[in-house]
Amino acid sequence: RAMPEERTEQPHIVTCTAPVNIAVIKYWGKRNEDLILPINSSLSVTLHQDQLKTTTTVATSRSFQEDRIWLNGKEEDITHPRLQSCLREIRRLARKRRNDGDSGVDSASLSHKVHICSVNNFPTAAGLASSAAGFACLVYTLARVFGVEGELSGIARQGSGSACRSMYGGFVQWIMGNKEDGKDSLAQQVEPETHWPELRILVLVASAERKPVGSTSGMQTSVKTSCLLKHRAESVVPGRMVEMTEAIRKKDFAAFAELTMKDSNQFHATCLDTYPPIFYLNHVSQQIISLVHRYNKHYGETRVAYTFDAGPNAVIFTLQQHVPEFVHVVQHFFPPETNGQVNQGACILLGYFSKEGT
Amino acid sequence: RAMPEERTEQPHIVTCTAPVNIAVIKYWGKRNEDLILPINSSLSVTLHQDQLKTTTTVATSRSFQEDRIWLNGKEEDITHPRLQSCLREIRRLARKRRNDGDSGVDSASLSHKVHICSVNNFPTAAGLASSAAGFACLVYTLARVFGVEGELSGIARQGSGSACRSMYGGFVQWIMGNKEDGKDSLAQQVEPETHWPELRILVLVASAERKPVGSTSGMQTSVKTSCLLKHRAESVVPGRMVEMTEAIRKKDFAAFAELTMKDSNQFHATCLDTYPPIFYLNHVSQQIISLVHRYNKHYGETRVAYTFDAGPNAVIFTLQQHVPEFVHVVQHFFPPETNGQVNQGACILLGYFSKEGT
Repeated sequence: RAMPEERTEQPHIVTCTAPVNIAVIKYWGKRNEDLILPINSSLSVTLHQDQLKTTTTVATSRSFQEDRIWLNGKEEDITHPRLQSCLREIRRLARKRRNDGDSGVDSASLSHKVHICSVNNFPTAAGLASSAAGFACLVYTLARVFGVEGELSGIARQGSGSACRSMYGGFVQWIMGNKEDGKDSLAQQVEPETHWPELRILVLVASAERKPVGSTSGMQTSVKTSCLLKHRAESVVPGRMVEMTEAIRKKDFAAFAELTMKDSNQFHATCLDTYPPIFYLNHVSQQIISLVHRYNKHYGETRVAYTFDAGPNAVIFTLQQHVPEFVHVVQHFFPPETNGQVNQGACILLGYFSKEGT
Repeated sequence: RAMPEERTEQPHIVTCTAPVNIAVIKYWGKRNEDLILPINSSLSVTLHQDQLKTTTTVATSRSFQEDRIWLNGKEEDITHPRLQSCLREIRRLARKRRNDGDSGVDSASLSHKVHICSVNNFPTAAGLASSAAGFACLVYTLARVFGVEGELSGIARQGSGSACRSMYGGFVQWIMGNKEDGKDSLAQQVEPETHWPELRILVLVASAERKPVGSTSGMQTSVKTSCLLKHRAESVVPGRMVEMTEAIRKKDFAAFAELTMKDSNQFHATCLDTYPPIFYLNHVSQQIISLVHRYNKHYGETRVAYTFDAGPNAVIFTLQQHVPEFVHVVQHFFPPETNGQVNQGACILLGYFSKEGT
């Protein structure tokens, strides 16, 4: 479990943190919009919480009139269907456990309304999937408030698909499942965070602009219009899940890196095959891709890999010993903050992230 | 046949012209590199020769010591395998016909060497597939020189795949064929140039830079590495060939336009799925794509379509009545030659091309 920092300051206030995860086999497309069931399995690496995390505090009180939520200090609409799904499912689980005689469930809290406060410690500019860490943290914190334990990734999934993968540390797969009710669409740890201590993760910011097409509507359009996405989900990803799991198990960096790059590219290819087409990669993203391939070619081995989610910013995987040189190369080709225009194509190194503490 | 202008100035000098063609169902990938046999059929629109054409002059003389070729005034290497294929195949055909007693074959010329001069009347900046018009013209002119007639697209194909489609006017399909020897991989007119007189074609130049990856090596890498390309060729294109032929037959512009855009996007998606990935679309191309979709959305109907070959420049299809307004819109969003930097992201309207004379 990747939720270390819990501190119950008062009986009815619980604070937890949750990590960001970076998919190396991408999730894109739902077969059920309400339950958030994907058209293919996916696999990710959970980042260490030293650099990037969401912190969520949940308070319950008899005096609260209604459920409310604040994200990064701003009150948001609690009636959002996905928030409602998470609240409803956690309360249902708590009620079920209480009725089953589980003494850990806080019966008093169950009848109370909640106030939720969630903040990210990373700039929105990073373009990192904050909803994954956010919903993972929300579900985990609510579970603690109500005294619920056990498998929670199926609930986090109903907040944001990839949130289910942030419920675990290390290398995590989200098994798509087959059931209509989604009960078997869950996250599972493939290897723990201690498995590959040399692995390092960097983030290169190519643009701080908001993406023109959000993931939710983007993947809906892709599922409707891209025949390449259908083929990818049905015929390509199953084999890649096996290959990726194997590369991670063997700590075979070249295999891991190449498959990561291929899968990122294929995901963006299906976006381009969407009608109208969706472009998440910009000019700087293309330059980063080209730089990584030239760098690897120069050394005659795959030392660095990129992956891009639904946005232009790159996440870079490499091994510890190559970090200083590659960072130097990036800073050479993308000088930071020249003439103050950091958002106009410059690359910012946000820091080094390891899935392990350093 | 789209080769009108022939003038035999002397008995042994023949000059012909050939048109450019724009694929609406794209050719990308060979199953046989030497014979240039494609992994899928394709379909194109042949442009009128008023604006864009290749002009080729072939001279034969007893005094010539060797075959030689000049392209746009510069002598090139005649030993290039594809040039050799065309020369060899035309001479073989001429010999065969002469031996069969065809009186049209020029027996004297058959033993002579040729000097070939080929020029394009369009700037290289247009990024239009000059090799298609070039090889179509070469093969057609050589055939005239040697007195050969009949099916020649199979020979043009061996110079440059898409050249076979420039052997006909109007709407032309290149049927991939099944035979090992490629004898059934030929071009065929789907509809004549008179079929859809309202159709108009514009070229928008997004960049005059040379493409980083040439088509020949690009498609080799794609065939080797992209599983989406394999799926496209086997399972997507066959249905699209039928749909496109039908849209053209019915002059259904919306159907024609949407399929044209989808097929262009899918081709570029397979380039992105290639490893390492190939990017032919640049920032300006993306802006053109976005502009076309916004324009169509504004009118609630598909009035304009884009297609991109292995480069960033757009070819636009629309109907005659929409040309003035769309040109105005393009000029508004891409002002021509601001600060003299035409190649740095500006769009140039090269002119209006109809597949019919105006």
